[in-house]
Amino acid sequence: MKLFEPLRLGGHEIQNRIAVTAMVTRLSGSDGYVNEDVIERYVRFAEGGAGLIVVEATAVHGAKSGPLLRLSEDGFIPGIEKVAGSVHDASEAKIVLQIIHFLKIARSGWRQKVTQLSTEELEALPALFRDTALRAKRAGMDGVELHMAHAYTLSSLLSRKNKRTDRYGGSIENRMRMPSMVIESVRCAVGPDFIVGVRFDAEECIKNGYSLPDATEFAIRFASLGVDYVSLSAGGKFEDAIHRKGQPLYPYTGYSGDRCMPGSNYPDLFNIHLSEGVKAALLNKGLNTPVMGSGKIPTAALAEELLQKGSCDIVGFARSLLADPYWPKKLQDGRSEEIVRCIYCNVCKRLDENFRQVRCYLWPEGTTHAPRPYEFEEPAIAWASDKPLTHSITKGGINLSWESPRGNSRPGGFDIFRSDNGHDFDRSSATQRNSFRDISAVSGRKYFYYVRAYDESGRRGLPSNIVEAELPDWHEA
Amino acid sequence: MKLFEPLRLGGHEIQNRIAVTAMVTRLSGSDGYVNEDVIERYVRFAEGGAGLIVVEATAVHGAKSGPLLRLSEDGFIPGIEKVAGSVHDASEAKIVLQIIHFLKIARSGWRQKVTQLSTEELEALPALFRDTALRAKRAGMDGVELHMAHAYTLSSLLSRKNKRTDRYGGSIENRMRMPSMVIESVRCAVGPDFIVGVRFDAEECIKNGYSLPDATEFAIRFASLGVDYVSLSAGGKFEDAIHRKGQPLYPYTGYSGDRCMPGSNYPDLFNIHLSEGVKAALLNKGLNTPVMGSGKIPTAALAEELLQKGSCDIVGFARSLLADPYWPKKLQDGRSEEIVRCIYCNVCKRLDENFRQVRCYLWPEGTTHAPRPYEFEEPAIAWASDKPLTHSITKGGINLSWESPRGNSRPGGFDIFRSDNGHDFDRSSATQRNSFRDISAVSGRKYFYYVRAYDESGRRGLPSNIVEAELPDWHEA
Repeated sequence: MKLFEPLRLGGHEIQNRIAVTAMVTRLSGSDGYVNEDVIERYVRFAEGGAGLIVVEATAVHGAKSGPLLRLSEDGFIPGIEKVAGSVHDASEAKIVLQIIHFLKIARSGWRQKVTQLSTEELEALPALFRDTALRAKRAGMDGVELHMAHAYTLSSLLSRKNKRTDRYGGSIENRMRMPSMVIESVRCAVGPDFIVGVRFDAEECIKNGYSLPDATEFAIRFASLGVDYVSLSAGGKFEDAIHRKGQPLYPYTGYSGDRCMPGSNYPDLFNIHLSEGVKAALLNKGLNTPVMGSGKIPTAALAEELLQKGSCDIVGFARSLLADPYWPKKLQDGRSEEIVRCIYCNVCKRLDENFRQVRCYLWPEGTTHAPRPYEFEEPAIAWASDKPLTHSITKGGINLSWESPRGNSRPGGFDIFRSDNGHDFDRSSATQRNSFRDISAVSGRKYFYYVRAYDESGRRGLPSNIVEAELPDWHEA
Repeated sequence: MKLFEPLRLGGHEIQNRIAVTAMVTRLSGSDGYVNEDVIERYVRFAEGGAGLIVVEATAVHGAKSGPLLRLSEDGFIPGIEKVAGSVHDASEAKIVLQIIHFLKIARSGWRQKVTQLSTEELEALPALFRDTALRAKRAGMDGVELHMAHAYTLSSLLSRKNKRTDRYGGSIENRMRMPSMVIESVRCAVGPDFIVGVRFDAEECIKNGYSLPDATEFAIRFASLGVDYVSLSAGGKFEDAIHRKGQPLYPYTGYSGDRCMPGSNYPDLFNIHLSEGVKAALLNKGLNTPVMGSGKIPTAALAEELLQKGSCDIVGFARSLLADPYWPKKLQDGRSEEIVRCIYCNVCKRLDENFRQVRCYLWPEGTTHAPRPYEFEEPAIAWASDKPLTHSITKGGINLSWESPRGNSRPGGFDIFRSDNGHDFDRSSATQRNSFRDISAVSGRKYFYYVRAYDESGRRGLPSNIVEAELPDWHEA
């Protein structure tokens, strides 16, 4: 598989094309220091076999914020050093720190805009990013990723909503100027052996925002300035954020937040046309800078297809690696049956929006981290009866329920498989409950379902009996 | 060209694959009656050679609204008859009437939701649509298009935001129930020879809205119920509409409005993946119902590609046929040089949003309709000097200005062509002014520009001189 081929990134080689994209964990305190939980989170990604780990957004400045890592002063270096060291101890993975500058927000809903920054404040940015990148290097990180996506300062400068009238706003050249200055400043300071990546929105997903035509210009510029990879995101903007009384605006609460982390209502590979467009534009200018694509890529098979097609060079995963950080290793070990697969229910996203510690709905209740895989020989979990699965029909939906399985380990959850011909089954969801309501069934078609339980390390039991269900003709209630 | 191949639609044959999608004109009074301007608008589309003309949304009920056509009573038939008759007199085009039901809105920003409709109000819909379709048939229309897109009643029922707890909300089956009842009621009443099309959003483009997975189910259901074509739109929802004080909410004012009518900041063919997805899902179920794709399809060549690829069977054009209703005929007559091409500036969209008569920015000032093409032999317009075009650079942008041309007819506008290698020129915009500011140029690249004037019927003069421009290095101001 191309997914497991190594790739040169600047002075480093990553062992495969699987990257953990930056995900806020909200595990640190608002003091910004690394703690044991933060380290634990990244160690699991390392143990799990991802080739590149991008550590969550870490502030380059000392501004007030919620729980968010910081590296704005040397005092933060030891903590970051522990993260990098623990990851390096656990695996061959390369680890880069995403570094961020953000503007002020208030509980009233007010937010500072780039037009309100003085020239001095703005022109301080390159040094802030440079100094933070140098600290990351001293801390043993393999690189930094410059955060130019979503709702933050550099992204707001790139935005079509940047209405500054000086050399940092208005035209596309002016909008790119400060981000270019930041890249140049960091690139020169850290030297060629330190990975410098950049992540930006390929589409803002807000009214009058920019889309691919602008994003391809950004990519060409940034690649020309020598970044080692270009990572693409979408949306996540303040402009359409939903203000909750007494809470600061949070940029993933509107439609652009949906587009940033597409949920189960969206098709798979929802944003991949964006990395395809950017990759093509770079190649067209003779630039071979690796491109990272992401956005609801549910399986290794689909990721492999993207690499084969050249849609991107690295595949970024967030939610699927949160659900099961060990899936790359399980896949390589021929144990793909044990992968706990994300259902894009976005419970993680809602936790983040509510400023709570980010965990996965599919993890065993009460745990802060994904379970480590075990090595039992025997199937860990089994149905107690022949026909554990039954169904009923109410209000235009099909209800499934099943008995609790028995086993020698703690139940993890249940995968639900559905088919409309009785043989080609797709996994349609997963749950930790003993029931599931399918509201996406339509009348005039037969549906077949079975359920498989898994234990907390992902080891599956046998499939349940298959039930067959059909909605009444749509004319009927 | 496949674009000019005929296609069977129910009992009719359309002469080519070019369709005018429904566009509000705001030419009628709020009494809902057809007037001369309304007729004139559709006659031009007919003269221009489109194979299918979809007349703007026409109400099936008597509710208060802004300027909007109505066919809620027999008294409206004579007006609609004139539209159909005038179109039939002018061409072979088939003409269908888009029929709509909408909920109440108020200047306070309040809007009625589908959850607020009683069962009786809801269950009155099939008869309203059926009776209006029968009136359209008596008026000489070739068919009707059932409006299930954007922010209106049937769309709001299909929506994931439909939270009704009875048989008309919640599950996808329940959400499709009333729209299915409407289709069945209309289909049975009008007979097989009358075209019954349906238009719906393939993606809602709002937070927690539906996307292709739901839309493909809608398409399969509606095709099974015997609609003659499926036409796809996107967005245009109330949920993200921007309320202007003292004005009722208007559903094209938010980001979903951008997605419905993508402007110049978006890539070409922005929504075509939606018709591709729906077409594939229909074929997969053995359904050959023609699919209409639309959304920023700027040229006949690109439309042809879509048909060749099977992305859709009919290509819907709104803004490009508003700009020049005569482009299909000009193209067939070998006069494609005379086509006035839409620049997606969305002045038409803003006029609509402000409840003003919808016209095109590229039409001669003061006119209510696109100019008819003339038949002069001589080029109508010419530059008065050798070097009419000059440029300057300010604030990160390249400014072009040019002399007024002379000619034997009224100037129409100017196309601006740009290249970054001096030979492959693309038309990058058009204007009616004598100047243009390019804010999408980047430093480090040379740009070449020329300008061509055209008269009000689209006949081009010769290209201007070429100017070469380059922004200063990005480090400089």
